[in-house]
Amino acid sequence: MWIRRSRNLPLGGQLYEGLRQAILRGELLPGERLPSTRVLAAREGIGRNTALRVYRRLVEEGYVEGCHGRGTFVATDLAGCQGVPSRRPASRRAKRRRKLATSRRSERLAKLAPSWVAPSRSLPYDFHYGRPSDEDFPWTTWRRVLFRCVRELSLRELEYGDPAGLPALRSQIAMHLRETRGVACDDEQILIVNGSQQGLCLAAEVLLDPGDRVVMEEPGYAGAQTVFRAAGATLMAAPVGPDGVDFGELAGSTRSTRIVYVTPSHQFPTGTVMSLPQRFALLEWARRRGAWIFEDDYDSELRYGVRPVESLQGLDPNDSVLYAGTFSKLMFPAMRIGYLVAPRPIVAKLRTAKAVADTGTSMLQHHALAEFMAAGHFGRHIRRSRARNARRRAALVTELVDRLGLEVEVLGADAGLHVMLRFPRIPLRAEARIIARAAEVGVGVYSPSSFFLRPRRGGPASLLLGYASLSPEAIRRGAARLASIVSGVSRSASRLRSTSAGRSSITK
Amino acid sequence: MWIRRSRNLPLGGQLYEGLRQAILRGELLPGERLPSTRVLAAREGIGRNTALRVYRRLVEEGYVEGCHGRGTFVATDLAGCQGVPSRRPASRRAKRRRKLATSRRSERLAKLAPSWVAPSRSLPYDFHYGRPSDEDFPWTTWRRVLFRCVRELSLRELEYGDPAGLPALRSQIAMHLRETRGVACDDEQILIVNGSQQGLCLAAEVLLDPGDRVVMEEPGYAGAQTVFRAAGATLMAAPVGPDGVDFGELAGSTRSTRIVYVTPSHQFPTGTVMSLPQRFALLEWARRRGAWIFEDDYDSELRYGVRPVESLQGLDPNDSVLYAGTFSKLMFPAMRIGYLVAPRPIVAKLRTAKAVADTGTSMLQHHALAEFMAAGHFGRHIRRSRARNARRRAALVTELVDRLGLEVEVLGADAGLHVMLRFPRIPLRAEARIIARAAEVGVGVYSPSSFFLRPRRGGPASLLLGYASLSPEAIRRGAARLASIVSGVSRSASRLRSTSAGRSSITK
Repeated sequence: MWIRRSRNLPLGGQLYEGLRQAILRGELLPGERLPSTRVLAAREGIGRNTALRVYRRLVEEGYVEGCHGRGTFVATDLAGCQGVPSRRPASRRAKRRRKLATSRRSERLAKLAPSWVAPSRSLPYDFHYGRPSDEDFPWTTWRRVLFRCVRELSLRELEYGDPAGLPALRSQIAMHLRETRGVACDDEQILIVNGSQQGLCLAAEVLLDPGDRVVMEEPGYAGAQTVFRAAGATLMAAPVGPDGVDFGELAGSTRSTRIVYVTPSHQFPTGTVMSLPQRFALLEWARRRGAWIFEDDYDSELRYGVRPVESLQGLDPNDSVLYAGTFSKLMFPAMRIGYLVAPRPIVAKLRTAKAVADTGTSMLQHHALAEFMAAGHFGRHIRRSRARNARRRAALVTELVDRLGLEVEVLGADAGLHVMLRFPRIPLRAEARIIARAAEVGVGVYSPSSFFLRPRRGGPASLLLGYASLSPEAIRRGAARLASIVSGVSRSASRLRSTSAGRSSITK
Repeated sequence: MWIRRSRNLPLGGQLYEGLRQAILRGELLPGERLPSTRVLAAREGIGRNTALRVYRRLVEEGYVEGCHGRGTFVATDLAGCQGVPSRRPASRRAKRRRKLATSRRSERLAKLAPSWVAPSRSLPYDFHYGRPSDEDFPWTTWRRVLFRCVRELSLRELEYGDPAGLPALRSQIAMHLRETRGVACDDEQILIVNGSQQGLCLAAEVLLDPGDRVVMEEPGYAGAQTVFRAAGATLMAAPVGPDGVDFGELAGSTRSTRIVYVTPSHQFPTGTVMSLPQRFALLEWARRRGAWIFEDDYDSELRYGVRPVESLQGLDPNDSVLYAGTFSKLMFPAMRIGYLVAPRPIVAKLRTAKAVADTGTSMLQHHALAEFMAAGHFGRHIRRSRARNARRRAALVTELVDRLGLEVEVLGADAGLHVMLRFPRIPLRAEARIIARAAEVGVGVYSPSSFFLRPRRGGPASLLLGYASLSPEAIRRGAARLASIVSGVSRSASRLRSTSAGRSSITK
């Protein structure tokens, strides 16, 4: 019986697959005669027409040869093919397999933990960072725009387009950046990318050789660390102080640096805003060392109370800043549309890098987004988001400060969609306990540990809290639960301190 | 006057920008006193409130300091910033700029011609390859599915997803490939990528180091050549014979090869189908040299008359084949969705490479495409496309053969969306003339020259003709015009031959 039962295939398909496998496995040898269709049909319990169709298909594909009047044979020209294992059992073939070589980059990639795991737990008060609000997003408007685009577009407009993205969208983005972020750019410098992550990758491709030095903020954005590590760069940590990256520690070093990665508008994750003198100091530091600056302006549109500080790019007289932004925070992450403003000297190289990488980003959403911006919906959405997130931020900060007083410091609350909490009286080692206990009462809070290049040593416990996806009411309830856990941990920590202090006085 | 006239900005914004620039340029020095708001308002011809708002913004951003009762001053802490050019004119600053270093990869990218130019000419009979048909595509169904997805999806489902793509879509693709292409795979091996171009790039990242050898078909797909060149590989040309790539020429070489790139189902651009013995020979050749095989199955669904030959991947017992496919040919190019079937040993590395490259592909169309496939629309679309393109192909081939007879050989007409024409009586040097004359009468035909790694030497003139975007009637008219041009060129070529034959007999 050659029929291999499979619920997905009709009888003929099953027989075809069985015969083919028998030939491939060498159970039927080249030149061997196959039974007549009459015999085959009887033996396998199928119709003769089915048997005939299977033979015809095997002939068409070159597995068997029909010789009129003489019968059907396994193709003799398969005999010379060393790849057809003759009578060798599958297990021996498997042993022949050897490990094929991969690249040095892949060895580096293997060391990087895959950053994504399927969301499993679902906590009622999940302060997960990077999750947008279902309610804030103007679904109705977006759908209307998207529907109109889908309706009006013809295939002509959905052919392979400019790898740098739809000109209309690039023009809207350039205008938006000039007006709201003080970015000095024209449309030609804009590259639409699949989220700022691809912007980072293209920059690394065009600028970095293995062994080159990259200066990163410490703590800093893990996604950027991953890209630079994959590219084989040597990463240097620049500690983040109250005014942004502290170049004091690195100032003495004269070693050349290829890229400085910074988030000056709202440092990730601490939320620090880089001061104007620090900005100028950074530009000068980079100029002296021949370094490019990668300015990741990931959530600069959301700034509360104070006016957004304008971009570093707009202050740079040296054409050395690559400016990146994204629609993931304000629209939705799965949109996967970001942009890169390329310094003029490397516009062409980045364009080619993008063309080689994927020929360009999916165009349908380009059309929709360009119209969404041109009609003013994006600007309105920013203003509305700002107001709503200001209320969320106020709910979170007020609740925490009311309940914890001096036991908590709230960092980075001027902008963005997250804050960092520091608990001056709780040691670092108690951080995991707070996170675990919070989860038990339905509150999701996150450790900033994964954003450090070097292991954290000492210092107070800290937490990262995103608030964009929760209502002010949920935020208050979640914050209240977190506060009571923090108070409990703080009390036991101070008991421990006083006990050990007492003990040490005895032993001394 | 500090107001810098700009039609995009209100008066306050113009003044702000003027003052800021004056500070940045060093026309106003750190510590210098600014006029009072009353004086400023009078001087610039604006309201005093506007002047006040501008000063407040400059204070907020750190450019100026207000000292209650004493006035407003340029911030003194800018004095220490070397980046603030004091009194240096802009032209001298520009000279300080030096060229910043870029990567070795970027030098390679610079040598690759950017592959995209905006389509300028619009010919009525454009046999451009890779252009789909506006009429074939089931717009109504696709819109309906897309609309439903847009309506039903919430932001939760549009968060950052699995970098390998939406599980439901990967499952649909795996099923499609198992059933129609004999690909041996499960869902976990499927990676959704931004068109097969990104699949190539990820493969190059994971498998190739600069200097590694890659064997390419000659002629072959230029997009793949570009990727491997950018990766710094050494490219070897394997001539395409009537049964696919000819490994005879390379068989003697024992040099290790990292990747063999092939299009066995419908060789690009010649249209050759790789025979079964050639497939086994290739698998064995690659096994002996420790090479991975990249099987680009770009248009295998469209096969006329004969049943599609199943994939090379399904024949490989060594887990060494990366199989790539795309929806660009059957859906539309700007969809930018393709897939890679990864051999098990490198699934994890390719997943990480994709996550690092862009965190994953835009999800909206994943949902729509998964539903489109699950509901059977994709299968129906393939069958309908096959029937329609068979008619187009027949119109093209019949018209050309009827009019040109033995003067034309049509290659690769069994499958895909293009054919290659060879004109045995016309020398290579006349190819450009045919293309230019055809364009004059509204017919777009293309030279295969850009698909050769080595310059073509001698041989007959050849052309590449895609037919998917034209109606059978337009194809017939275009083919008739092309035929009369070819006849003309052929006649003058044969006159030239007889003349030079006559001349040479005299000189001998």
